[in-house]
Amino acid sequence: MRIADRISNLGTETAFAVSAEAATFAAQGNRVFPFHLGDINLPTPSTVVDGAQKAIADGKTGYCPNAGIPQLREALAADLAASHNTPYEAENIVVQPGGKPTIGKFILTMMNPGDEVLYPNPGYPIYESQIEFNGGKAVPYGYVEGDANFAIDFDTIERGLTDKTRLLILNDLQNPMGAESSPEELERLAQLVRDRNLYVLADEAYFDMRYAGKSTSFVEQPGMAERTVVLYTFSKKFAMTGWRLGASVGPKEIVDVIAKINVNDESCSNHFIQYGALAGLEGDQSEVQAILNTLEARRDATAAGLNAIEGIDTFIPNATFYLFPNVTNLMEAKGLNDYEEFRRAALHATGVSFTNRLHFGREQPNEPNKYIRFAYSGIDVPDIEEGLGLFKEWAES
Amino acid sequence: MRIADRISNLGTETAFAVSAEAATFAAQGNRVFPFHLGDINLPTPSTVVDGAQKAIADGKTGYCPNAGIPQLREALAADLAASHNTPYEAENIVVQPGGKPTIGKFILTMMNPGDEVLYPNPGYPIYESQIEFNGGKAVPYGYVEGDANFAIDFDTIERGLTDKTRLLILNDLQNPMGAESSPEELERLAQLVRDRNLYVLADEAYFDMRYAGKSTSFVEQPGMAERTVVLYTFSKKFAMTGWRLGASVGPKEIVDVIAKINVNDESCSNHFIQYGALAGLEGDQSEVQAILNTLEARRDATAAGLNAIEGIDTFIPNATFYLFPNVTNLMEAKGLNDYEEFRRAALHATGVSFTNRLHFGREQPNEPNKYIRFAYSGIDVPDIEEGLGLFKEWAES
Repeated sequence: MRIADRISNLGTETAFAVSAEAATFAAQGNRVFPFHLGDINLPTPSTVVDGAQKAIADGKTGYCPNAGIPQLREALAADLAASHNTPYEAENIVVQPGGKPTIGKFILTMMNPGDEVLYPNPGYPIYESQIEFNGGKAVPYGYVEGDANFAIDFDTIERGLTDKTRLLILNDLQNPMGAESSPEELERLAQLVRDRNLYVLADEAYFDMRYAGKSTSFVEQPGMAERTVVLYTFSKKFAMTGWRLGASVGPKEIVDVIAKINVNDESCSNHFIQYGALAGLEGDQSEVQAILNTLEARRDATAAGLNAIEGIDTFIPNATFYLFPNVTNLMEAKGLNDYEEFRRAALHATGVSFTNRLHFGREQPNEPNKYIRFAYSGIDVPDIEEGLGLFKEWAES
Repeated sequence: MRIADRISNLGTETAFAVSAEAATFAAQGNRVFPFHLGDINLPTPSTVVDGAQKAIADGKTGYCPNAGIPQLREALAADLAASHNTPYEAENIVVQPGGKPTIGKFILTMMNPGDEVLYPNPGYPIYESQIEFNGGKAVPYGYVEGDANFAIDFDTIERGLTDKTRLLILNDLQNPMGAESSPEELERLAQLVRDRNLYVLADEAYFDMRYAGKSTSFVEQPGMAERTVVLYTFSKKFAMTGWRLGASVGPKEIVDVIAKINVNDESCSNHFIQYGALAGLEGDQSEVQAILNTLEARRDATAAGLNAIEGIDTFIPNATFYLFPNVTNLMEAKGLNDYEEFRRAALHATGVSFTNRLHFGREQPNEPNKYIRFAYSGIDVPDIEEGLGLFKEWAES
């Protein structure tokens, strides 16, 4: 059988293999502490559930417009206009079956084969995959460990820029690092985007997942709203990962093309779920706030548990639901230099399951430190404490 | 702004423009009889609704496996093994957010740029669009009007075959024609597929939408299951068009690649809806049968209404929910040679809204007859009768 050549350039999320290993280990009768997956083990707010169920009863079970129902496009535009200080209107919104579809559709719309795309690495692995699958060159930029946060490594950006650089992918409030760029970093990036006439995908999957302070979108930088597509998702804020609803938000000219891709790929996103999301946006926000409160307590427990371990240091970001501890010293102390060997040793000794740097893009030459990722969105505080107690015991033994 | 070059090869469903025109005409205070859209104005069976709602209550709101929940893959494999006389197992099924996604994912998986793909024309316009968008050459084959059915025009297939022909798209129980291939046609096609070492997309969106007889899948032909991907959808049988759920069904090697595309495009299909579909497959079938009974009555009313009009002739297919009347004589009698002019004249004179041949792929040179498409899935019998009464009056005036 001859499979098409392009498939050899298609990547994946290798983190799913970690889930599978954890599931196998659990099926053998072992306790597993799941820090590996960015899923949320909390119920969807009743505003959303009730809104969707009412829409089913009202017969919203047939096709809807390719770009989404007008009411949701309007409501989301109003919501984002306020949070992004940007005059978004319904025509700037095209609804998607999740946050992820915006990545591939942005690349299909804006990247020619041979174009170079700057993307964060460590970062969400689908960037690298979609760029290369569609014939582009994925050019990584990194982050450096600062005093209290990871900061964009502008040296890697400067080194990566060529006259073929066409697009920049930014994931401020970053997965896996929890990094949040300072106003100065965003200004410097925007300057570079203007100078080089780039277009930007701003993956804002975690924009609303924060426990202190206020998120600031890259589109607030001068001239950026005109050249940026925002990846918006309902998945996190409304604990709707399995519902599959999000949106691409940007200039009408790009959004119209993405809507035409919708026609070709999936016709439309689920009709009644759009009414559920609308009810979620417009309804009482107390359950949304409760999700954040729960996650904040988990963040604190996870960070405390990790920082109590000899050889581990982690920042405590104000946003996302990830910690990205530096485990260089611990891996050295354990005599384990290989990421996957270390991960498996920890899993089998303690049941603590996590991903590592290798699950977030290809490792770059001469990385000075070793990092693992702890997601705390799918594990309750008592389990966090018990798991990290066992992890500490193993780590320090 | 520079949009990527590939977008110039992206097609669309021009039928949506017909909906928009009908909506505008209705908004001006006119009565519209909607025969233009292949949507279903009937409620989804309660088995599906209850199954989905129970799954929400059970917390099936997080991510699920990229290829679909195992229970649904198993149940659908069992269902299709029986109806297709083919030993399908769960590993042959990859769940999709609708029927349509299978078209693009099959082409991405099996077609290299420059490959030629035989596709039906008149046919679902997304075939042509996805082939060309992904750098292939779309080679049309046609159908000829027989005594009681449309039959594949093997002359056009023979003329279209070259040493670059790689794939065949078959839509037996066809949109827009309602065509159903005879056993002899399917045998001849299978012979050709074997001789030329082709791979096949069998779009079976209407496999279960039939009112007499039994559907026979192309995969029952010798050697075809090994080289065919079936497009399966829950949209029609369960009146779930707006829920967005379907599956790609085929050889494990292809299905595994399509699952990897799922990882990149949308992670997974909605989690709880898969439980709804499972309940629909396994539950009581009386509401499913009621949908078919309703559609059959509409078919009969639509066919009777059309065939009562001077200058119109239509077959009465046993499957799909489309009629594809020959209106060559009527258009001539009305002095309207242009498809779109004819369509608009009918809409504005009578409120009867329908699509025509031009909405189903590029018109081919020297087509001897003119056809329009009537979809009867979204209009009740009294409205069918009233609308076609007005249409007859206008047609014969």
